[in-house]
Amino acid sequence: MPAAKFDVLGLGNAIVDVIAPVDDDFVINAKLRKGAMQLVDEAAAQALYDAMGATTIVSGGSAANTIAGLASFGGKGAFIGKVRDDEAGRAFAHDIKATGVHFSTPASQDGPSTARCLVLVTPDGQRTMNTYLGACQNLTIADIDAADVAASQILYLEGYLWDPPAAKRAFVEAARIAHDAGRQVALTLSDVFCVDRYQQEFQDLIRDGVVDILFANESELHALYQTSDFASALAALRQENILAAVTRSEKGAVVVKGAVTYEVAAAPIGTLVDTTGAGDLFAAGFLTGYTRQQPLDRCARLGALAASEIIQHFGARPETGLAGLAEQSDYLHAL
Amino acid sequence: MPAAKFDVLGLGNAIVDVIAPVDDDFVINAKLRKGAMQLVDEAAAQALYDAMGATTIVSGGSAANTIAGLASFGGKGAFIGKVRDDEAGRAFAHDIKATGVHFSTPASQDGPSTARCLVLVTPDGQRTMNTYLGACQNLTIADIDAADVAASQILYLEGYLWDPPAAKRAFVEAARIAHDAGRQVALTLSDVFCVDRYQQEFQDLIRDGVVDILFANESELHALYQTSDFASALAALRQENILAAVTRSEKGAVVVKGAVTYEVAAAPIGTLVDTTGAGDLFAAGFLTGYTRQQPLDRCARLGALAASEIIQHFGARPETGLAGLAEQSDYLHAL
Repeated sequence: MPAAKFDVLGLGNAIVDVIAPVDDDFVINAKLRKGAMQLVDEAAAQALYDAMGATTIVSGGSAANTIAGLASFGGKGAFIGKVRDDEAGRAFAHDIKATGVHFSTPASQDGPSTARCLVLVTPDGQRTMNTYLGACQNLTIADIDAADVAASQILYLEGYLWDPPAAKRAFVEAARIAHDAGRQVALTLSDVFCVDRYQQEFQDLIRDGVVDILFANESELHALYQTSDFASALAALRQENILAAVTRSEKGAVVVKGAVTYEVAAAPIGTLVDTTGAGDLFAAGFLTGYTRQQPLDRCARLGALAASEIIQHFGARPETGLAGLAEQSDYLHAL
Repeated sequence: MPAAKFDVLGLGNAIVDVIAPVDDDFVINAKLRKGAMQLVDEAAAQALYDAMGATTIVSGGSAANTIAGLASFGGKGAFIGKVRDDEAGRAFAHDIKATGVHFSTPASQDGPSTARCLVLVTPDGQRTMNTYLGACQNLTIADIDAADVAASQILYLEGYLWDPPAAKRAFVEAARIAHDAGRQVALTLSDVFCVDRYQQEFQDLIRDGVVDILFANESELHALYQTSDFASALAALRQENILAAVTRSEKGAVVVKGAVTYEVAAAPIGTLVDTTGAGDLFAAGFLTGYTRQQPLDRCARLGALAASEIIQHFGARPETGLAGLAEQSDYLHAL
């Protein structure tokens, strides 16, 4: 197997986040599921935007956030995702390339505009996401750069790719290319309602050996195994022949590999501002350690450290260089 | 004089801020004047943007920030400024209206795009601004809503309006309308190099009675009176028959009204992140107090409190409701 050109290649929805603080009544009155991601059409997105306060706009997208986080740690990342050639699409491309990530998916020249996620942040720091998929619906197999996929240690896929119809086929094809090249495939389950929509398909992906590494939070794992009991979900997870990292918010994270379990505490924070991207950045830190052959408990601590940075400000892209943060971190070095 | 419909009407450049952290070398290598605002053409703006890291995009504009801050304190604000009908222009309009500010200046349907300010934030929290004026160059006398100006307690003007040629005439006309209606006119000197460009004209505005209330920082005051000595500048300022508030960063602020002087300390902060908007928000707090007939030292403390909020995060629009902050503030209530 040739040396990898990239540590991780991410495949995901290319989204610009439009963030505003709201009170709990706003979420209730808009009949939204607090803490979840829901898909909205363009008209609903416009109506919600009109009702929101002044916004902060930053690039987002789950896998894109993870790859940007990996690059912030000094890792070599690549990303495949579809924007349109409009102001938001150019901002997305600028931002991911500015972090040092390789990104060359051609922008759509017509059709729906670049995807937006309207992120409502309540005073408890919880985020409720409303995604207009826009140009992401144009991601197809033709956008998969086979040479780049084959040249990446890890292919990282987001469960949200199940939402735009053609992206699912691109996902499966990319995983086939990666495995043919002797690489590993990672999947994040993305969102509890996303798992509800595609529970059987995600289980099949895991059981058919398409997925080597799984990222999930506690709720997503419960949804995957249709249980409300964490121990039962973890027991089911152990039956799969994969490496899995399960995040549990302030309770830290659990890494499972066969019969072996590692538990790590959450990294300490000052003020919780916005939980958007906590899972994405956990995966960034974990994969940074993993692609450097670090012990699994250290991988999880790198994940927890990255998550702690992201939840202390608006947006899901690091504002502080994660490599520097890792160097200075008592939490990491206490290990 | 009829009761005022608005506490303050701001007239200024309508700008979207595009913010990225950079190191000091970036500012040096790009041959920029650290801490200042410089005008750039579209090509230079694009080249700088290409060199910047991932950005955070928020609405800005000096007077617009002030009016948004006033609204955050619960004040009744209005704003006049020119955007183009493009994505950035629609975001600007959304954001200022979302804060409860009256904004009805028609967007340009063609011509240059909505103005952008590329804000480079160094690790010391200092910001270096690079403004592409774009659609602001289309602001003319025709955009001045005479009824709104006449119905506002205070007309607030930014010195930056001297940059786009037609805006200067709109500025002078708006001041005439305000004074004819028995209202007061406030001016912020904006930036030390802006004062350098228009020093004589700004002095004339003050001496001709066009300006009733002046906002400046220490450097701008030095530039206005061509002195490097603060005491001399303050002595010159006392000779003008106006109310003036001079901000001095961590040294607090000085309010001068004829022979009377009030000095207030800076409000305490946690971590300095980005000084963008400190002066704008000082003016917001000061004018909130002033239009509510508060004592001048309390006006200055309201200003210092608003400035302390804005410098602890990226962007020059409040992320925390200033009315609530004022209620809870030990700094304010120690007065």
